[in-house]
Amino acid sequence: MGFGCCHYQSVGEGCDSAFTMDASRVTFGRGCLSEVGERARALGMRRVALFSDAGVARLPHFEKVRASLLAAGLEVGVFTDVRVEPTDRSFLEAVRFAADLRPDGYVSLGGGSVIDTCKAANLYATWPSDFLTYVNAPVGEGRPVPGPLKPHIACPTTSGTGSEVTGITIFDLLSLGAKTGIASHALRPTEALVDPDCTATLPGEVVAASGLDVLSHALESYTARPYVRRPAPPRPSLRPMSQGANPWSDLGCREALRLMGLYLERGVKDAGDHEAREQLMWAATLAGIAFGNAGVHAPHGMAYAVAGLVREFRPTGYPQDEPLVPHGMAVILNAPSVFRYTAEESPERHLEAATWLGADARGAGPKDAGEVLADKLIRIMRAVGMPNGLGGVGYTEADVAALTEGAFPQQRLLQNAPREMSRPVLSGLFQQALGYW
Amino acid sequence: MGFGCCHYQSVGEGCDSAFTMDASRVTFGRGCLSEVGERARALGMRRVALFSDAGVARLPHFEKVRASLLAAGLEVGVFTDVRVEPTDRSFLEAVRFAADLRPDGYVSLGGGSVIDTCKAANLYATWPSDFLTYVNAPVGEGRPVPGPLKPHIACPTTSGTGSEVTGITIFDLLSLGAKTGIASHALRPTEALVDPDCTATLPGEVVAASGLDVLSHALESYTARPYVRRPAPPRPSLRPMSQGANPWSDLGCREALRLMGLYLERGVKDAGDHEAREQLMWAATLAGIAFGNAGVHAPHGMAYAVAGLVREFRPTGYPQDEPLVPHGMAVILNAPSVFRYTAEESPERHLEAATWLGADARGAGPKDAGEVLADKLIRIMRAVGMPNGLGGVGYTEADVAALTEGAFPQQRLLQNAPREMSRPVLSGLFQQALGYW
Ligand SMILES: NC(=O)c1ccc[n+]([C@@H]2O[C@H](COP(=O)([O-])OP(=O)(O)OC[C@H]3O[C@@H](n4cnc5c(N)ncnc54)[C@H](O)[C@@H]3O)[C@@H](O)[C@H]2O)c1
Ligand SMILES: NC(=O)c1ccc[n+]([C@@H]2O[C@H](COP(=O)([O-])OP(=O)(O)OC[C@H]3O[C@@H](n4cnc5c(N)ncnc54)[C@H](O)[C@@H]3O)[C@@H](O)[C@H]2O)c1
Ligand SMILES: [Zn+2]
Ligand SMILES: [Zn+2]
Ligand SMILES: [Zn+2]
Ligand SMILES: [Zn+2]
Repeated sequence: MGFGCCHYQSVGEGCDSAFTMDASRVTFGRGCLSEVGERARALGMRRVALFSDAGVARLPHFEKVRASLLAAGLEVGVFTDVRVEPTDRSFLEAVRFAADLRPDGYVSLGGGSVIDTCKAANLYATWPSDFLTYVNAPVGEGRPVPGPLKPHIACPTTSGTGSEVTGITIFDLLSLGAKTGIASHALRPTEALVDPDCTATLPGEVVAASGLDVLSHALESYTARPYVRRPAPPRPSLRPMSQGANPWSDLGCREALRLMGLYLERGVKDAGDHEAREQLMWAATLAGIAFGNAGVHAPHGMAYAVAGLVREFRPTGYPQDEPLVPHGMAVILNAPSVFRYTAEESPERHLEAATWLGADARGAGPKDAGEVLADKLIRIMRAVGMPNGLGGVGYTEADVAALTEGAFPQQRLLQNAPREMSRPVLSGLFQQALGYW
Repeated sequence: MGFGCCHYQSVGEGCDSAFTMDASRVTFGRGCLSEVGERARALGMRRVALFSDAGVARLPHFEKVRASLLAAGLEVGVFTDVRVEPTDRSFLEAVRFAADLRPDGYVSLGGGSVIDTCKAANLYATWPSDFLTYVNAPVGEGRPVPGPLKPHIACPTTSGTGSEVTGITIFDLLSLGAKTGIASHALRPTEALVDPDCTATLPGEVVAASGLDVLSHALESYTARPYVRRPAPPRPSLRPMSQGANPWSDLGCREALRLMGLYLERGVKDAGDHEAREQLMWAATLAGIAFGNAGVHAPHGMAYAVAGLVREFRPTGYPQDEPLVPHGMAVILNAPSVFRYTAEESPERHLEAATWLGADARGAGPKDAGEVLADKLIRIMRAVGMPNGLGGVGYTEADVAALTEGAFPQQRLLQNAPREMSRPVLSGLFQQALGYW
């Protein structure tokens, strides 16, 4: 036992011996959206770009935020054309809006799609450039962001991505048929306002998918390659945000897993269960802080191909105009397959994680760890209505090669996995993820 | 059960329904002091004021920091006259040094005494003013700091105060004969470099006193009045740092208590037990993050009188030139007495805390909570060589009135307690703290 001791005591040769914890200011609690106006003014904003998507813009939360900004004497320009599961094309529309408005600050109200779009708009309006300049290598050029962005207050409305506290923005690169992203400390919002009142209007399907995203953020960060086994950076400022599992991220992961085990099913099934939905929102923030300082790995890397190559799937609870696999769903469909494979590297962590989720692991030994965790995940997935593996969203054996090619370039994520993720390994993991029951 | 649910579900009438989490960037790990030069430069520093005390300045850590700053091409002015357990007089010397040097950034290397002195120097050199202007009311005027300070990188060398992540600075106001402080978000260091290598040179007595400070930060934050029972601020920017117990501080508190239970005795007894001393350092940082966002209460408020009224006590392991009661000792001597009294308000939290510290609370009910926790604290105090209550540092019944008068003005802390702290209550608590065994 001892969560910190064994896992982090011996530093690998040439590896890092320190980790860095970064966090934005976060305010959490019912009604806190009404603080946005005063906070925006305190950050020096005068002309604000307010981002949302068409669905969220119709909800009372949106009026509340706009009213608070206006009451604080701010000028407000509104962009509500965010695409759910954004693409490079939809990002560029948002950038154009921001470049025209020339705001001195940003407020985003919505799920990860909205917050991520707002980050991209802030980035390219502040530091104009070819789109691929800042995109993660090897897909993009992976250049560092030249300096700070304009202040950004992020207000999440899903109990999901944690994007309000991370320096990451994710999009679907249409030409590639896969998702990828931009990762930079500069992208981290200045503040987050996390108001669980927002969750009352969420469709159960969105609570399920975004909750499983949270669950996987916690599981992946907890099982990621420990920071003491990542090569040391040439300079401290080059220590990546995906620095691997560490005692700080572990704390948030364990609590997020515990809360998911207690509240996910309740929150999915009953929009009136305020306690459950509030706790899911809190878990999302904690997992965001954790994975923002540790990084996710294979289930996310694979998800970017699963989401990018979608053909026909149109899930209920989401906009129906275009096929899409919601991010959390695309992630969790890979998870049982991946954790069966990674358990060998740190069986005690896989067992512990299953236990935090509520599994009964009495009598289970190291050899059972992968199966115990996979079994618990599959039970949760069934309980909240997930499709039966990748087959359930339309993929067959014939797609495994394309999925593998889509996932393999996600090296930033794959190198954060605890075991090797070569092409043949990925291909086997996709194969095993086609169906679970 | 459910750590968050019962404690925070119902918001008191007119009370706050949200809490705010603030944190500086923290880097933790062996050897990370060598990152200070590059980090200082990245923060835009060119001329650095480096603070330390005479004891720490003789240690190799000091040379390491200076060398790293010089290697990064920075000009370095050195102040090593920090007083251990600083006073308003010693603060003013540091302010004069900084006002003369006109640095554009600060680095502090030492325990809480050094980091706190550096905060004060940065404050008054950046925003010159009468000394009492920013000091907490009712002792001082409690005026808000007018704007941001110069960047400050804090490098703690004790496994103690957590000052590297808080917006608090504490000193002994000589004219009052009691400690008090300044609390402002602006005081929070920009970054912290927490290098457990520093702890190898610590005398066991300092590990003990500063470790019990950490333990009490965690216990006090965990049992503080919950944020949902503090009156809501007129504006969000006026939400105090001492906002009361909340789910975020709870996380850090529980882990800090668990680590203290496992490692404090080991770390005090054996300077060569690197694992124990590293874990104590980590616990100190966690408890600092927790209490920086929740606030401490009566044991600290009372400690400010205990330290301020000292007559003869000169503890081994500390400078011998003047009498002093080390901060952590002054705090912990009140703790069993206080928690016996506060347990009535949240017995389950007091029992839980005792359990995290390693007490066996099987069969204990709500009525036993205060005694179970006090008993565990007393065992720990004896095991690490603390004096037997306030009597052990020279106080008698005849001092109770003066101690009470010294503690009562600490309203910022006393109002954060879960039960009333009137003069008669304080007097009774001091009485009960005179001797424990
Ligand atoms: N930046 C990061 O760190 C990060 C992390 C994980 C995922 N992501 C990205 O975030 C996106 C997914 O975000 P998400 O899961 O939060 O969902 P989302 O933003 O895509 O929204 C999903 C649906 O829920 C609706 N919705 C949102 N809030 C609502 C509310 N309160 N009431 C009713 N309906 C509401 C939206 O209109 C939309 O139709 C993906 O693009 C994913 O790649 C980013
Ligand atoms: N600002 C805050 O949030 C906060 C919180 C708690 C306490 N405090 C204040 O901090 C002060 C106490 O600080 P502390 O407990 O860290 O101790 P300290 O700074 O007073 O140092 C105690 C002694 O240890 C020596 N020392 C420090 N590091 C050493 C090392 N690595 N090796 C050998 N010797 C070392 C010092 O020279 C000194 O003699 C008090 O003034 C207290 O009021 C501040
Ligand atoms: Zn262990
Ligand atoms: Zn995700
Ligand atoms: Zn409960
Ligand atoms: Zn203290």
